[in-house]
Amino acid sequence: MSATNIVWHSPIVTKESRSTLKKQHPFIVWFTGYSGSGKSTIANAVEQRLSELNLHTYLLDGDNVRNGLNKDLGFNDADRKENIRRIGEMAKLFVDAGLIVITAFISPFKHERQTVRELVKKGEFFEVYMNTPLTTCEERDSKGLYKKARAGEIKNFTGIDSTYEPPVNPEVTLDTSSMTVEECVNRVIEHLNNAGILPQ
Amino acid sequence: MSATNIVWHSPIVTKESRSTLKKQHPFIVWFTGYSGSGKSTIANAVEQRLSELNLHTYLLDGDNVRNGLNKDLGFNDADRKENIRRIGEMAKLFVDAGLIVITAFISPFKHERQTVRELVKKGEFFEVYMNTPLTTCEERDSKGLYKKARAGEIKNFTGIDSTYEPPVNPEVTLDTSSMTVEECVNRVIEHLNNAGILPQ
Repeated sequence: MSATNIVWHSPIVTKESRSTLKKQHPFIVWFTGYSGSGKSTIANAVEQRLSELNLHTYLLDGDNVRNGLNKDLGFNDADRKENIRRIGEMAKLFVDAGLIVITAFISPFKHERQTVRELVKKGEFFEVYMNTPLTTCEERDSKGLYKKARAGEIKNFTGIDSTYEPPVNPEVTLDTSSMTVEECVNRVIEHLNNAGILPQ
Repeated sequence: MSATNIVWHSPIVTKESRSTLKKQHPFIVWFTGYSGSGKSTIANAVEQRLSELNLHTYLLDGDNVRNGLNKDLGFNDADRKENIRRIGEMAKLFVDAGLIVITAFISPFKHERQTVRELVKKGEFFEVYMNTPLTTCEERDSKGLYKKARAGEIKNFTGIDSTYEPPVNPEVTLDTSSMTVEECVNRVIEHLNNAGILPQ
């Protein structure tokens, strides 16, 4: 198995030259949390705010990843790990291409999130923990998935019969049960601003 | 298996808005051909030329894909197919992000290349067939891989003990045994120009 006999070519167009061309720092904003915690909503709103600053962003989420690159994967632990591994590797290439990548996946396991963090340079990974209480997420049940999970129609559902490991030191913690969308977005933008990676 | 229960969110920042922001048409230039046929060399030179036009490009090749996203895959037929499937899905997302993607992979099978072509819109996929004779590729043997394959030290090597299916109607055909790098690059750029997707 595995990819041996690979010769490494030095690319002529580098991450640095792309970053200069684009006049922006590339980085990853990684949302993690239960289904219904508000990941996609806040991720979309953050992307909107960044694009108003003329920054070039890309949002990776279940819609464009689970239906394409990772459509061969299910939701058992091994597949969830492989799902996040591939998303991390792809996000790394988007960062290498000079983009600001925003991801919205439950990404339940600490180890996989840490692995993604280590794929990019220090200061290029921002973990946003959607700490919305599970009870609120389940009450919302906007996709009707909790109901199905409780009925046993969906297996391996995070928070019901599959584990979620909360981040220990996330860059930002949000809770959409007590904060508005605007407050959440402001908190993320403020953090990115303080990190000195947004245009002033 | 497989990703069910996915709800599709309409993204606020769309392919069109990104394309407008970037003032460029996104597309894929897909190089295919034997090891040693000149894929990486020409792909790098094409990328360089496009970046001189201030276009935002990204090169996917064995270096950044086989060592990352696809490092779990080997070189038997099934893994080669999965390799190209994932690269195609990823390239599609880069196009969705507004970038010009250049890929340099042997990509030996017609069916997989056709599948990638169909992932994006008509006119967004340009197949460049590196029709350098196998004998030339083997004589060059810049990575020493043909020697190893002939000695049986590498298995499933395209052109030796693994099939290569040439494109039927590639957008561009090149042969680095009879054309210079500059001639090859000019041919590709000319084709893209004629397709009306480069800034005038």
